[in-house]
Amino acid sequence: MTDTRPIHQPANDRSAELPVGPRPAVPPMPDDLARWASADAVARPVRLARLRERMAQEAVDVYFGVSRENTRYLTGFVLAEGEEKVAGDSGRFLVSPAEVVVLVDSRYREQAEEECRGLRIEESYYDLPDRWEAIVRSLRAADGRPVRRVAVEATLVSHALWQALQAAAPDVELVAAGSWVEELRAVKEPAEIERIAAACAVADEALTRLLPSIRPGVTEHDLALQLEWEMRTHGAEALAFDVTCLSGPRAALPHGSPGDRPVTAGGVLLFDFGAQVAGYRSDMTRTLFVGEPSRRELELYRLVAVSQEAAFRALAEAASEHDAPTGVSVDAAARDVIAAAGHGDHFGHGLGHGIGLATHEMPSLSRRALPAPLPWPTVFSIEPGIYLPGETGIRIEDLVVFDPESDTLERLTGFPREVTVVGS
Amino acid sequence: MTDTRPIHQPANDRSAELPVGPRPAVPPMPDDLARWASADAVARPVRLARLRERMAQEAVDVYFGVSRENTRYLTGFVLAEGEEKVAGDSGRFLVSPAEVVVLVDSRYREQAEEECRGLRIEESYYDLPDRWEAIVRSLRAADGRPVRRVAVEATLVSHALWQALQAAAPDVELVAAGSWVEELRAVKEPAEIERIAAACAVADEALTRLLPSIRPGVTEHDLALQLEWEMRTHGAEALAFDVTCLSGPRAALPHGSPGDRPVTAGGVLLFDFGAQVAGYRSDMTRTLFVGEPSRRELELYRLVAVSQEAAFRALAEAASEHDAPTGVSVDAAARDVIAAAGHGDHFGHGLGHGIGLATHEMPSLSRRALPAPLPWPTVFSIEPGIYLPGETGIRIEDLVVFDPESDTLERLTGFPREVTVVGS
Repeated sequence: MTDTRPIHQPANDRSAELPVGPRPAVPPMPDDLARWASADAVARPVRLARLRERMAQEAVDVYFGVSRENTRYLTGFVLAEGEEKVAGDSGRFLVSPAEVVVLVDSRYREQAEEECRGLRIEESYYDLPDRWEAIVRSLRAADGRPVRRVAVEATLVSHALWQALQAAAPDVELVAAGSWVEELRAVKEPAEIERIAAACAVADEALTRLLPSIRPGVTEHDLALQLEWEMRTHGAEALAFDVTCLSGPRAALPHGSPGDRPVTAGGVLLFDFGAQVAGYRSDMTRTLFVGEPSRRELELYRLVAVSQEAAFRALAEAASEHDAPTGVSVDAAARDVIAAAGHGDHFGHGLGHGIGLATHEMPSLSRRALPAPLPWPTVFSIEPGIYLPGETGIRIEDLVVFDPESDTLERLTGFPREVTVVGS
Repeated sequence: MTDTRPIHQPANDRSAELPVGPRPAVPPMPDDLARWASADAVARPVRLARLRERMAQEAVDVYFGVSRENTRYLTGFVLAEGEEKVAGDSGRFLVSPAEVVVLVDSRYREQAEEECRGLRIEESYYDLPDRWEAIVRSLRAADGRPVRRVAVEATLVSHALWQALQAAAPDVELVAAGSWVEELRAVKEPAEIERIAAACAVADEALTRLLPSIRPGVTEHDLALQLEWEMRTHGAEALAFDVTCLSGPRAALPHGSPGDRPVTAGGVLLFDFGAQVAGYRSDMTRTLFVGEPSRRELELYRLVAVSQEAAFRALAEAASEHDAPTGVSVDAAARDVIAAAGHGDHFGHGLGHGIGLATHEMPSLSRRALPAPLPWPTVFSIEPGIYLPGETGIRIEDLVVFDPESDTLERLTGFPREVTVVGS
């Protein structure tokens, strides 16, 4: 039986519950998929135009990218998570002022012809340095002269590949690209937000369906597998990441893997999980109570919830003033609540991260975040936590869409944040 | 109903069927897991000693690694596939003549303390360049002097990180490490081969259980999901990679993703899939026939099977002479068969790849492989294929263990290679 209780005492006036945004139908219908595909087809030239503006500002003639997510965002070519490790040069791409070149080996040629219509497809099979000079020579700078400066995704391209490309065409200068595409990706188009919301809805429903199976004796591993199965058979094309399911003191491991440990009554059960729908991802953490919660764990739970609400409030106030706070300030708003209660040292990670084609992307909300205002419209997580090694761990994570231009701050994750008691 | 037929006409004398090696029990029992964990604990110091020998030969004082697989192999620290993307510096490691340092952020500290007993654990959170100088200064070269040369996994470390580390300690020379650890990993210990064999057995059983579900009308996606589920609920802790399930002309895409296309009678159905057991992976391709095969597809299937047998024969002959052929020569033995039948252009990929902690690792068997003899004992795939765009695709992939020292050449994948007709 599941028992849901309000987080706060009725007299508590600090409550700042965030409305849950529109709920897309899940699983997505073929119409949705077709609509999202057309939206991408319309958006891709706009995204490329923005990148080319940035290239012009930075005085580079060509952009060379290798990120799985940037490839999909700019060219439409799809690789699964991890597939880039076995795909050789496939999916790597070059953008010049007039052209987009997608590299593939023979295994991926038909796929690229389907997914990258109108783009130039070139063969390359783990041997890009041998082809580099010819490819770069075939491109032209904005004024038609030969290419002199190529921006490279230096945080992803290996040092060895960089050196080999430099040696292959010594008169073409390689420069480290900034987070130009990542900054574009941080600003979400409506069809991107829809897909993240759909992924959230898949995850919400999956956890709801899992609740009756949670009882003392069942293992973390079996619950994680069942939760995954609920998502994969009800609309998720993949997971956003491996399901975390940690019980009791194990919940103090913020990234532990589910094990063969049986769930026991009287402890927490922490789920951190996400779905992927049409390329876009969700991410949610819920800490449930198996059987009657202890007073101490309830207090910790309320503290984490109040910390999360402090972040919601900081964002909502900024949105209502059509303003964007920095990631550092939102992190501080939540962190101060936990630190004031003496648990500052037990909240070791950042408050949140952007999400979209990647599970973790820009913007970052943390002590180390950029001092610049958050971009918008954007989607990110708000996930404060308290971890007491050997004792317990509590985290509440929701995704929000933030758009101060339209005074929008909505939760995309719909599963209740209230104290939820299961297995009793 | 499933109908299995011999590949060859009775008069065909080219048959070179390979014996299937010992079949481990699946799912693995707690005893197996404990035995493999102890074997790793005993082997890790030996692996480190070999790496240190190589470091001495190459005159480097410290090895800096970031590969998920190398971390697990040398330190025991486990990251799931793709987790390194969100793990920051966690799992990166340094090996000096006297010490091993594993970097983790607070999220992974407890895990590292469990998995890396006896190693030095240092905190780092996406800020390694800030800590680099202090960490390197804390280590000593073999003769006790300060560290001067650090070998870096240059094919995995990004150019940006390399530059930042160089700037953080300008008097410490960074040099590109060769495939030193990857070469160690190519030589398999008995407990590693056992785990690959267990992963093969999980995959064999999963496909066997899937067969009754294959019939015209069911989609590629649903079959792929069911095959995955069979593996995940019967011994696989994870997949080696996303299941490929392609029907009819789609089988010509060697790496296509399963879609909503229903399986139709009269075409092929290609499965490429693998399981992971205790960190180690399997990889197998079977091309089944849905309903009565056409004469042309049967001929192609036989051609691919004979090509695979030619590779088996080349390896078996070498093994019986306690000799190791090169990856190029084994590839050629199989490729010549396909080329002689006029399909050389329809076999675009390499013949095989090593497998272990990674799905693709050393050694490579291809036209571009190293000219050196294959290492041993080792495990790799033999996977010739013929792809006719828009028409059909056929691939047969088995894993073999090769050890000429003991005249061993065995198949680890046990599912029949014979012509298999399903859904009739």
